[in-house]
Amino acid sequence: MNIDEVVNQQLSTLVEQRRYLHMHPELSFKETQTYQYILEHLRSCPHLNIYEHVGGSGIVAKIKGFSDKTVAFRADFDALPIQDQKEVPYKSTVPGVMHACGHDGHTSTLLALTSILSEQSSSLNGNVIIIFQFAEELAPGGAKPMVEDGVLDHVDVIYGNHLWSSFNSHEIHSRPDALMASPDMFHITLIGKGGHGAKPHTSIDAIVAMAQFINQIQTIVSRTINPVDAAVITVGKVEAGDAFNIISHTARCSGTVRTFDPAVKATIKTALEQELQGLAKAKGIHYEFNYTDGYPAVVNHEREYRIVKRAAEKLGLKFIETEPLMVGEDFSYYLQERPGAFFMTGAGHPAAAPHHHPMFDIDEDAMATTLKMFLTILEEEGILNADSNR
Amino acid sequence: MNIDEVVNQQLSTLVEQRRYLHMHPELSFKETQTYQYILEHLRSCPHLNIYEHVGGSGIVAKIKGFSDKTVAFRADFDALPIQDQKEVPYKSTVPGVMHACGHDGHTSTLLALTSILSEQSSSLNGNVIIIFQFAEELAPGGAKPMVEDGVLDHVDVIYGNHLWSSFNSHEIHSRPDALMASPDMFHITLIGKGGHGAKPHTSIDAIVAMAQFINQIQTIVSRTINPVDAAVITVGKVEAGDAFNIISHTARCSGTVRTFDPAVKATIKTALEQELQGLAKAKGIHYEFNYTDGYPAVVNHEREYRIVKRAAEKLGLKFIETEPLMVGEDFSYYLQERPGAFFMTGAGHPAAAPHHHPMFDIDEDAMATTLKMFLTILEEEGILNADSNR
Amino acid sequence: MNIDEVVNQQLSTLVEQRRYLHMHPELSFKETQTYQYILEHLRSCPHLNIYEHVGGSGIVAKIKGFSDKTVAFRADFDALPIQDQKEVPYKSTVPGVMHACGHDGHTSTLLALTSILSEQSSSLNGNVIIIFQFAEELAPGGAKPMVEDGVLDHVDVIYGNHLWSSFNSHEIHSRPDALMASPDMFHITLIGKGGHGAKPHTSIDAIVAMAQFINQIQTIVSRTINPVDAAVITVGKVEAGDAFNIISHTARCSGTVRTFDPAVKATIKTALEQELQGLAKAKGIHYEFNYTDGYPAVVNHEREYRIVKRAAEKLGLKFIETEPLMVGEDFSYYLQERPGAFFMTGAGHPAAAPHHHPMFDIDEDAMATTLKMFLTILEEEGILNADSNR
Amino acid sequence: MNIDEVVNQQLSTLVEQRRYLHMHPELSFKETQTYQYILEHLRSCPHLNIYEHVGGSGIVAKIKGFSDKTVAFRADFDALPIQDQKEVPYKSTVPGVMHACGHDGHTSTLLALTSILSEQSSSLNGNVIIIFQFAEELAPGGAKPMVEDGVLDHVDVIYGNHLWSSFNSHEIHSRPDALMASPDMFHITLIGKGGHGAKPHTSIDAIVAMAQFINQIQTIVSRTINPVDAAVITVGKVEAGDAFNIISHTARCSGTVRTFDPAVKATIKTALEQELQGLAKAKGIHYEFNYTDGYPAVVNHEREYRIVKRAAEKLGLKFIETEPLMVGEDFSYYLQERPGAFFMTGAGHPAAAPHHHPMFDIDEDAMATTLKMFLTILEEEGILNADSNR
Repeated sequence: MNIDEVVNQQLSTLVEQRRYLHMHPELSFKETQTYQYILEHLRSCPHLNIYEHVGGSGIVAKIKGFSDKTVAFRADFDALPIQDQKEVPYKSTVPGVMHACGHDGHTSTLLALTSILSEQSSSLNGNVIIIFQFAEELAPGGAKPMVEDGVLDHVDVIYGNHLWSSFNSHEIHSRPDALMASPDMFHITLIGKGGHGAKPHTSIDAIVAMAQFINQIQTIVSRTINPVDAAVITVGKVEAGDAFNIISHTARCSGTVRTFDPAVKATIKTALEQELQGLAKAKGIHYEFNYTDGYPAVVNHEREYRIVKRAAEKLGLKFIETEPLMVGEDFSYYLQERPGAFFMTGAGHPAAAPHHHPMFDIDEDAMATTLKMFLTILEEEGILNADSNR
Repeated sequence: MNIDEVVNQQLSTLVEQRRYLHMHPELSFKETQTYQYILEHLRSCPHLNIYEHVGGSGIVAKIKGFSDKTVAFRADFDALPIQDQKEVPYKSTVPGVMHACGHDGHTSTLLALTSILSEQSSSLNGNVIIIFQFAEELAPGGAKPMVEDGVLDHVDVIYGNHLWSSFNSHEIHSRPDALMASPDMFHITLIGKGGHGAKPHTSIDAIVAMAQFINQIQTIVSRTINPVDAAVITVGKVEAGDAFNIISHTARCSGTVRTFDPAVKATIKTALEQELQGLAKAKGIHYEFNYTDGYPAVVNHEREYRIVKRAAEKLGLKFIETEPLMVGEDFSYYLQERPGAFFMTGAGHPAAAPHHHPMFDIDEDAMATTLKMFLTILEEEGILNADSNR
Repeated sequence: MNIDEVVNQQLSTLVEQRRYLHMHPELSFKETQTYQYILEHLRSCPHLNIYEHVGGSGIVAKIKGFSDKTVAFRADFDALPIQDQKEVPYKSTVPGVMHACGHDGHTSTLLALTSILSEQSSSLNGNVIIIFQFAEELAPGGAKPMVEDGVLDHVDVIYGNHLWSSFNSHEIHSRPDALMASPDMFHITLIGKGGHGAKPHTSIDAIVAMAQFINQIQTIVSRTINPVDAAVITVGKVEAGDAFNIISHTARCSGTVRTFDPAVKATIKTALEQELQGLAKAKGIHYEFNYTDGYPAVVNHEREYRIVKRAAEKLGLKFIETEPLMVGEDFSYYLQERPGAFFMTGAGHPAAAPHHHPMFDIDEDAMATTLKMFLTILEEEGILNADSNR
Repeated sequence: MNIDEVVNQQLSTLVEQRRYLHMHPELSFKETQTYQYILEHLRSCPHLNIYEHVGGSGIVAKIKGFSDKTVAFRADFDALPIQDQKEVPYKSTVPGVMHACGHDGHTSTLLALTSILSEQSSSLNGNVIIIFQFAEELAPGGAKPMVEDGVLDHVDVIYGNHLWSSFNSHEIHSRPDALMASPDMFHITLIGKGGHGAKPHTSIDAIVAMAQFINQIQTIVSRTINPVDAAVITVGKVEAGDAFNIISHTARCSGTVRTFDPAVKATIKTALEQELQGLAKAKGIHYEFNYTDGYPAVVNHEREYRIVKRAAEKLGLKFIETEPLMVGEDFSYYLQERPGAFFMTGAGHPAAAPHHHPMFDIDEDAMATTLKMFLTILEEEGILNADSNR
């Protein structure tokens, strides 16, 4: 198989399918038409085992090869509650819903990969499993139920990819170990005792308490966490009080915690709660503390990371050992169960509209790049015969 | 004149007029019907000079006596944007507007005083001026324009009163020197640089800056102000951020400053601005600082305070040298120009619904008490002949 | 008795005795020679009952009059551990010990008063008790044991005075109600967990905890105390850490709390402890909290305050209703038991060296002024016959 | 050359020389006897070029080989102002001075390496330069002047090592990129305005300002620095105030900043100064800010790091990619000029007395381990002929 050649044959379909999906985005856990669209494509491919409704609305395609070794790839196919503001022919046709994160490209790339491999199944030295995952954008996500439903049961190793608009096209970014963070969410309500703005001594000022809380939790990152561990605590939203001259009874804040290491996350969670307990003791307030764990951190495995790197180098792409990204991805659930690696394909440039932005778009060439990466990875894994390649 | 007797003759009218006003409240600067109601009553009184549209919609009645000495009294007649929630026959008939501060009672009391004095004008040893003031509740208030329009030109001394629901009926509260505070208002916007919640280093976190600001300004009261001076800085409202996981670009807070001494107020205003300048320097934020001076503090004059005290004692009322109230009153403008005193007549009990509360009401007997206080003050001032009293 | 005349006869002795005492100061609780000096003088006076070792090393002189009514005066006679740096003939002869607070003048004034009254005992309409108190400067002070030893048993009313270097001579300062504060002391140790300066995560940083404590307690004055109550919390001393690059295991601070009202003091004490408990909870530190109550506040009684004021006016002195002083005085113990008043006699000017300063001195004329005040107070109390005065 | 064999021949000398140096420690910049001791040993070796007084009291030995390629090794030979508290025969004989960091071992290891190589110079495929450096412990250190004096002029690549008491013997620790931090020092004085503890309004409280400063700088690490960059700011020492009841005029603190990246260091330095400027503006204080740069971070080069790793693996040692150490080392100056790598040889166990501790000691076997590492590195660099090795 000549990789360049087979990929070139997919180019127009790649773009066509991606644009179709872009025009018909569906929100997480509501991807019914997208599900059908993928299914129809898969049904048109020969030599495929298709598994429907995996873990909910996930679809899995399996191409059997000549050994038990099984390599999996995964794409996600949900969109976001954002209004598309681009003026392009393939603009979203659904008001307030948009593929603003590139999942349309992920899906069409894996559809193309399925097409290629199903044609070539007779020459595969092992099995390939293609995972089409629903609901990556919204916790608890689709990866967890698909894993629980056994999607990895016969998988030896798994790879995933994200098209990335702020990385230059023709770059592959990844890193060994922790690549993407675990993004948690917290909501806090401090309950003091409201009162007349001129009578602080008859009240417990929830706003002053909130200010001290925000102030004090800065020491969690600065003093409680190992300086070589990355961690972020951001309070993104504060709301308190109804009038300038009334002491506020309650104060509310919400924030996010980003970590790569479960132990660091646990330390922060405990420290937040201790600061609240201390504040309650010091000021006589009460509090409600609601902490929601996001996806675990995406932690690459050494061997598969090296395979990604070698694949990029083999393809003449610029490989960058990127710094850890503080964003989250539920690909982490697959990597907790099996060896594997996740990488980003540059699909734009540093000044491009970022992910989750109403002007977001991708350089569509990046899909072909990713497709080549996947095929080369299969060579490196020994599934495709590299020697017969060119 | 026998005070008890003449007051008793007014009792039913006092209640009737107060209830009429209570049922027909009007917001500050919009008191057209109330104006007419007062005017009609005054026109029914003999021996009165009536001055209309003083400083806006103020009305002044003058009863001439046998000397140039002139004593003034003042009532305010505006209501508040509060929905009356009492179930009483005289409940407000205007949705969302309510006499929740007792100004209805102030006005009917002075109407009764005008009736009495206009009947007795031939026995007055001096002039009495009765001031019906609009818009006490809403800065810049009605007192200032009425003073500027010359209402005090021929006045030697002035008295004012507030019915007070949380003081026991039959108590008179006042104090020498500062009685009520100057209540100012401030609005602050901190402008940082918004960004992704996971990338604090590319942002300037307006919420953290706001927390530090609120924290730091605590030292203004605790360290910058003379401990024997009373001062309050309350931040009553904070708003910042749109989402838990986005670093907020701006943060807004509003608050009130309460002081008795203009020098203390000036120190606080300067200190707030200096803290903002410091924060801007330290964190690289920008800020907007909007500070609105409220009414000046109500500062009683020694002689007139003693007259109020003696009047209360003479009437067998319990006189209490009350602690300074941190609330504001635009009666202060009169006391800046002329000697005088302000006092509170208990019109309820400590557990009564407080002023500005939807369940607020007054013990209507307190109006008669206040009326007797005014007449006794006129005796003490030598306008009414005390010896012929009883 | 002509007050001016009898006082003039005492002038040279007043100065002589004050200077002798100034040259021979003794520390609190160690006033053996001073005790003897006073005793010798008293023994030279006729018609005196002398009570020795009252409550320790206090001395009391009683002059009997023609009624049971008894008025007391009090002077204190201890000095301070300060090196006298004045160059005057009457400079302290004791290295490191100095009458830097005017107690020498207080004592010689009361010695002169004793001389005058013992000569006049036949014309006194009541008893006068003169209290010479040890150890005012050092808690627990001499007033408390003298009161416990019965010094006030037959006393109806008591007066005390302080010569005051920063008030102008010929001024008398006092105020009704709270005149001088209750000055408490606290020592706090925070115990964290020391460690390498580069490893905050293995330590608990006592310095950061101390910084947050000092920061947070600002809200006690700004938010927990009634704004019309005066209160000060000063941390005067902080000590923590041995090296710039080692995380400090402990941090120590000491401070003072000044209040006029025992309830305010109790609130502050509780709030300090709560802040420490909160800090312990939030940061995992331990703490030691040592709080020492100082003297109670000096709270004047209304009647006696008015007598002081009238006495000053009668003598043509400028009387100033001074603002409360945040300093302490154990004269408070007498005023807790009996009606009375304390006042300051100006003995210098605003730019003079303040009390407890190595250059401190008094305008010696102020002693005669005080003596006249005491005699006039006795007139006002009806002990001396005012009519026969001049 | 058989590495095990040549190293075994050095074992007794290694220990003997290390113990001699341990008994005769000299402080940084005062290493006169140590200099002579090294020099004498070098003079006893054949085929050496010896360069004296390099950059001060540094000594360099050069063994010439058959090509221009030159590999350098470096040991440091200064001791610390610590009293040796071990009871061993080779205890320090100099009161208050001790080899508490293993530099004695570093030096004897390189003396042994020099002996071996000078014997084998005829078989070297390139030059080897052995650097004996003075004054590593005390900034500005000896590395900088030695580099400035040209010690690296003909060097292609350089390696350094530290014996490490808290790592297990037979382990080699290193990492690519930043291995050891840049440790800076700062001293800050805040100048307020002292005063009576009861009069905060007449003072500017330097202790409250210091508390706010320490509080606020927590946000530098938590918000200003990229979360994936390691940084520590520790305030290790605070001193302020003379008495519990006097408002402190000044407050002093000292601390350390640890970073790996000069840009991060620069950001912190700027942020500290900005916080001080902000504090000055907000509180009216003045400040003195003294910041001393420590050594740069030790940043390994990729190729040489891999050589160290391969050498360890070849020798059957456990190689650990260690986490970055927040401590400093002036080996950084060599790595700023030439490719190279630094690594730690385990010389104890995690519970051993840490470096700079009065009970510090090393497992002397670690010197032989290091010697083998150096020889294997020379093989990897192609200077020693690996094939002829065993």
